[in-house]
Amino acid sequence: MDTQTTLPESATSSFSTRTDSIYDCIVEPMHQVERMLRDQMQSKYEDLAPLLAHGALLGGKRLRPALVLLSGMATGSITTEHIVVGTVVEMVHTATLIHDDVLDSAQHRRHMPTVNAKWNNQTSILLGDYLFSQAFTLSASLGSTLACRWIGEAARLVCEGELRQIMTQGLMRLGEEDYLDIIRGKTAELCRVSCRLGAAYSNADETTQQTLASYGENLGIAFQIADDYLDLWGSAERVGKTLGTDLDQAKPTLPLIRLLETDPLMEDQIETILSLEADQRFQAIMQRLERSDAKQYTLETARRFATNAIDAIESLPSSDAKQTLCDIAMFSVNRGF
Amino acid sequence: MDTQTTLPESATSSFSTRTDSIYDCIVEPMHQVERMLRDQMQSKYEDLAPLLAHGALLGGKRLRPALVLLSGMATGSITTEHIVVGTVVEMVHTATLIHDDVLDSAQHRRHMPTVNAKWNNQTSILLGDYLFSQAFTLSASLGSTLACRWIGEAARLVCEGELRQIMTQGLMRLGEEDYLDIIRGKTAELCRVSCRLGAAYSNADETTQQTLASYGENLGIAFQIADDYLDLWGSAERVGKTLGTDLDQAKPTLPLIRLLETDPLMEDQIETILSLEADQRFQAIMQRLERSDAKQYTLETARRFATNAIDAIESLPSSDAKQTLCDIAMFSVNRGF
Repeated sequence: MDTQTTLPESATSSFSTRTDSIYDCIVEPMHQVERMLRDQMQSKYEDLAPLLAHGALLGGKRLRPALVLLSGMATGSITTEHIVVGTVVEMVHTATLIHDDVLDSAQHRRHMPTVNAKWNNQTSILLGDYLFSQAFTLSASLGSTLACRWIGEAARLVCEGELRQIMTQGLMRLGEEDYLDIIRGKTAELCRVSCRLGAAYSNADETTQQTLASYGENLGIAFQIADDYLDLWGSAERVGKTLGTDLDQAKPTLPLIRLLETDPLMEDQIETILSLEADQRFQAIMQRLERSDAKQYTLETARRFATNAIDAIESLPSSDAKQTLCDIAMFSVNRGF
Repeated sequence: MDTQTTLPESATSSFSTRTDSIYDCIVEPMHQVERMLRDQMQSKYEDLAPLLAHGALLGGKRLRPALVLLSGMATGSITTEHIVVGTVVEMVHTATLIHDDVLDSAQHRRHMPTVNAKWNNQTSILLGDYLFSQAFTLSASLGSTLACRWIGEAARLVCEGELRQIMTQGLMRLGEEDYLDIIRGKTAELCRVSCRLGAAYSNADETTQQTLASYGENLGIAFQIADDYLDLWGSAERVGKTLGTDLDQAKPTLPLIRLLETDPLMEDQIETILSLEADQRFQAIMQRLERSDAKQYTLETARRFATNAIDAIESLPSSDAKQTLCDIAMFSVNRGF
């Protein structure tokens, strides 16, 4: 499949699907984040140690700390503050993942059992709360209230986006604008604030901070739309979870929204289709999606936001960090396709 | 029932079971907290407004903001910072209540339907997270990181206490010391930090801050032990929830711990009793509790901590605020008995 038609050529040269090689220019500070994360996830109580250790492994690709470090490096030097902020955003992200797995009754995440599967929902709820609290305490260890304010507000917007998403669950009349607004909160906001804080702690001026913030927001949206795509057309093995789970949860995603907007027959059929058994529902939706332009449209939309992300930081001076940010934007729309 | 045998006479003079009259000397600042709370619980999204408005009403007696204000008044003057801190601790407390109601599958709280009953568990989890994030953002609006650090750490200790409690659920061999350690985190910590922050924002010295902190911790423990008592011997109507729910959840509480420690026969019988149907289990446990000293012991222990709370602030100069703190300590062990 040709995945590079809408992306600028300069950004594709060192593209790789392996995140560990993408992070080449921040190997040492990423290790520091990993160590701080492990230190934060310890407990003097024996009962809690295995639980916290399990939680520390759930985040996966550590995208948000990488965004903090790369944004810092692309606009100045990496300091201890960047390591702290990177650890904090990863802890907040992990807390939201643990709670998401309860919301979705998910059994696996990245080929590991979820906390709700290995322990139970109660433990998941409390562990998520524990991580939120610990993350805010850590961010308050920085000299000013800046990180607390921005990360607190970002976490609120994440919850607001998720609340709006479950309030619209099953409501298959959500327009594309509302959908984008929801994922802007749910997924893009923490990426946006990670990038902006990275620049702020390198003493970048307001304009440069906004440049990085715009990169982060567009990247987050691209990632989420690509996730919507992968939920239907990804490889179950590479994605590490069952396909069609968004459909099972009746979550409005971009492919479905596009299908409903372009196929006049769907409006009458959707309720009937959604009431079918899981397997039949998946088949029926997939057949209709394949006959529509929803697949191509979703991919193109994801690519458009990835391109916007790359364009946003065009004015930054060339550096390994800037190139890596471009590579990540490319990676966001090329995972497992 | 004579409930005042172990409490100093000076503290009982203006005792009342009505919390609204207890708060007489902080009526206006309590209204300011209430207004700020309502402002914080608004949303530009129509879907979310009724949910947030419902959340704002769940806290009930507003004990924690009252502790912030009274501690501030007993050691200096009330400032805007006290109003903000009072609002923040109430939001954190409300978030933990909303999540507790999911953990306990509770249907009612203070004669109102819980969020999980009126909406669902997913909404409850996200609303709790939303309140946590909003609370931390608000606390970061203060000039320094002080409130963020202390409240963040208190919230972490609350979660740690609750996690330890569910990890020991059904484990009827918990000793009294471990039990006290758990409720010190789960219930007392947020009271402790509310009092300490109240004193800190009145510029009280470290010794005075510790005095108020000690009051808050002892008060919180007294409240929780009294709650344990009320779960078995309270009036369902006044408590506003079904009796015996701790027993249904197999939560170790002080009456049960005392029974197991003093009745040698219970050790062999407890597993059998806990496996009975809810009604029979309640009857069987109650019969054995009535034959033991567990009821009296629980009440005396709660009173001992209430007395410790009052003793802790003995050195403070006389004031309406100090007297009210004493009244609240009395109230903690006299509710609905």
